[in-house]
Amino acid sequence: MKTSSPATRERILQHGLDLMSRVGLSGVTLGTLADQAGMSKSGLFAHFGSKEEVQIGLLERMVQTANGYVLEPAMQAAEGLPCLRALVLNWLGWSAKAGLSGGCPVAAGIFELDDIEGPVREHVLAMENHWRGVLKLFTLAAVERGHLSADLDVDQFVWELCGIYLSHHASLRFVRDPLADSRAHKAFESLVERSL
Amino acid sequence: MKTSSPATRERILQHGLDLMSRVGLSGVTLGTLADQAGMSKSGLFAHFGSKEEVQIGLLERMVQTANGYVLEPAMQAAEGLPCLRALVLNWLGWSAKAGLSGGCPVAAGIFELDDIEGPVREHVLAMENHWRGVLKLFTLAAVERGHLSADLDVDQFVWELCGIYLSHHASLRFVRDPLADSRAHKAFESLVERSL
Repeated sequence: MKTSSPATRERILQHGLDLMSRVGLSGVTLGTLADQAGMSKSGLFAHFGSKEEVQIGLLERMVQTANGYVLEPAMQAAEGLPCLRALVLNWLGWSAKAGLSGGCPVAAGIFELDDIEGPVREHVLAMENHWRGVLKLFTLAAVERGHLSADLDVDQFVWELCGIYLSHHASLRFVRDPLADSRAHKAFESLVERSL
Repeated sequence: MKTSSPATRERILQHGLDLMSRVGLSGVTLGTLADQAGMSKSGLFAHFGSKEEVQIGLLERMVQTANGYVLEPAMQAAEGLPCLRALVLNWLGWSAKAGLSGGCPVAAGIFELDDIEGPVREHVLAMENHWRGVLKLFTLAAVERGHLSADLDVDQFVWELCGIYLSHHASLRFVRDPLADSRAHKAFESLVERSL
């Protein structure tokens, strides 16, 4: 009989999210996660039936965590461009702000799972498409309020935003360039300026 | 006694590079590579002494391959901006042009190894810094010929170029967006236009 307490599940997810931010999705196995959470592999099995179930559970937890640091505080800014700007500035380097010791699991997953089919890829793809939809909504709100040009190619704007995010992730976390933040801010303000 | 023929080493590198493009650096182990190359793990040991040695050997092979598809043909274009444009257009999606079934191993490595220290990370970092240096040289040549503005922030230009490359990789290979190429070309031409 499976036993599964919410507090234990919580502890597993918290350790697992931090682990995933450092080693990527494929690094999170039932064995490595059991080690991190200080429990047996069979104890972990009471909560998650497979590696894929663990990974998807951790991705769901990541969304909750990221929302609290990225989306929710951005909603406090004035509607339109201020709100979009707050969203983008919160998004850049969000994993460190959320206390994770590694990078963004979705950014890593995009390069890790591009050629690996299956339910985890599908889940990351749905998350990525949802997030691009959020960026598009915030951009459209800035267009509607007249803060950005009425003939802006909003999909192109979001595509270029994603490039700024990925270049920032690469330069901050991999290259460890001390100018990563200022380069990203400059790139974003330049994108906004040519979209006014 | 170790025996090691160049033809066998060649076969291992060819299979290994394709494997690495699909599964990333950490997916290439002595076991998986031996399977792909149709040889025993001990046979592989005659050529490479460790997983790290295999990975670094494959990264070196990647440079040779990429140079033939990206750098060398770009040198045929007229000096300055035409040469830079050819370099960037060859770079976007180069792995498919080179016949690899997966993506760019360095792009993947940037997100895979950001929090993992060791000689493979150091090697990928050196490759990435070298490549950014090449992009900078080509951009400076376009500045010197008066094709790009004399007061261009060349490091910022290269930083934004890297964002276009990563966003293209994500949208082409992960999101599988049929507009990935045209979005990347539009982003690059917009970057050039504001740098004239």
